[in-house]
Amino acid sequence: MTEQNMRGTVVLLSGGMDSCVLLAKTVNECDADNVVALSVDYGQRHWVELEAARAIALHYEVEHIVVPLGALVTGVFTGNQSSQLNPSVEVPHGHYADDTMRATVVPNRNMILLSLATAAAVSRRYAAVAYAAHAGDHAVYPDCRRVFADSMADAMQLCDYDAIQLRRPFIGMSKAEVCRLGADLAAPLGLSYSCYEGGPQHCGKCGTCVERKEAFADAGVDDPTDYA
Amino acid sequence: MTEQNMRGTVVLLSGGMDSCVLLAKTVNECDADNVVALSVDYGQRHWVELEAARAIALHYEVEHIVVPLGALVTGVFTGNQSSQLNPSVEVPHGHYADDTMRATVVPNRNMILLSLATAAAVSRRYAAVAYAAHAGDHAVYPDCRRVFADSMADAMQLCDYDAIQLRRPFIGMSKAEVCRLGADLAAPLGLSYSCYEGGPQHCGKCGTCVERKEAFADAGVDDPTDYA
Repeated sequence: MTEQNMRGTVVLLSGGMDSCVLLAKTVNECDADNVVALSVDYGQRHWVELEAARAIALHYEVEHIVVPLGALVTGVFTGNQSSQLNPSVEVPHGHYADDTMRATVVPNRNMILLSLATAAAVSRRYAAVAYAAHAGDHAVYPDCRRVFADSMADAMQLCDYDAIQLRRPFIGMSKAEVCRLGADLAAPLGLSYSCYEGGPQHCGKCGTCVERKEAFADAGVDDPTDYA
Repeated sequence: MTEQNMRGTVVLLSGGMDSCVLLAKTVNECDADNVVALSVDYGQRHWVELEAARAIALHYEVEHIVVPLGALVTGVFTGNQSSQLNPSVEVPHGHYADDTMRATVVPNRNMILLSLATAAAVSRRYAAVAYAAHAGDHAVYPDCRRVFADSMADAMQLCDYDAIQLRRPFIGMSKAEVCRLGADLAAPLGLSYSCYEGGPQHCGKCGTCVERKEAFADAGVDDPTDYA
């Protein structure tokens, strides 16, 4: 184990497939005692994913912090028309890369998540923060692009006396490749949750459900998901 | 007024002298209707400054968002030894630039504040976020350095479909120069609050009180503060 890994990593864990695999990979490299998983309750429609995050963290026996940011919805996010924050906006169906998926963007989500994870890393004197943005996200979400991640990595190097490293091991990978890696690492993919509708079952029709199905199929991995 | 200013600015308002002057400057340039002030309750010891922020926002009749992040203290900031978060750690007295002032650092504070302000700007389709870091802060606070602000500015350009501009007009100014500008703009400096102790009166002995006194003296501006 490298000295960096021994100093610990904060993993952003949404409860989706990508962050589930990221936690599997990080625990594999760093040991569960040196890993903290961080999730944010920002008032998202699909809060079921927070339950999934809890189950995945429990599976790996890592500490799990859930940051309650629900109050942002009535102040910070005022005026926003994201389907994931505003119950009166319908969740778009179709392909993840479609323009309609713009409706699912939570404003500046990744910068908020990374800033909190970095604060947790600084507080614990950890060396790194990991997040699961992958190549397939880029078409729709500006804050999943490599250039965005690069600027945040610069800021995280400078925000404290000790630099915090931003790890983004999936930034050049497709979701199918992430899925394949998850299977290889025996990650509990069946515990992960992706659906934007937020129902007890995956709807199978929203952008993330469609993307999830495709990833399993393209990776040649058995899909454990129970779609409606 | 430029088109950018007409599209609106979110001002980070701690309630201290610097952000008070920043709000004065921004309202002067953008008109109060195009300005939102944002403060964060992150469980800081000196919550009196939030009352000061409210009074300053009211003075300028701008919308004021207070983001309740007190819950961070028991999760995200676990293990942190900042005197501003942990009541068992004593507030250091002496000069603001002393090494002892490291005890007052809130981990990754400015990245968190900027990420929330940026989310508010994106939600409202505003053009800019302004924060009041000045040259005198740099000695102690890594996240007040120009290089840190530059990386955050890059990330804010990339975090959404429309770029958000980071304004940091005081980054090359001393606190005395900021104070002088405040007096020129008739900013309500007497409403601002700086003391790290968080008492009803400024203690006059902690790092920020010492710095505040010096700034008024160096700027040749009458100090309206009632020190204990």
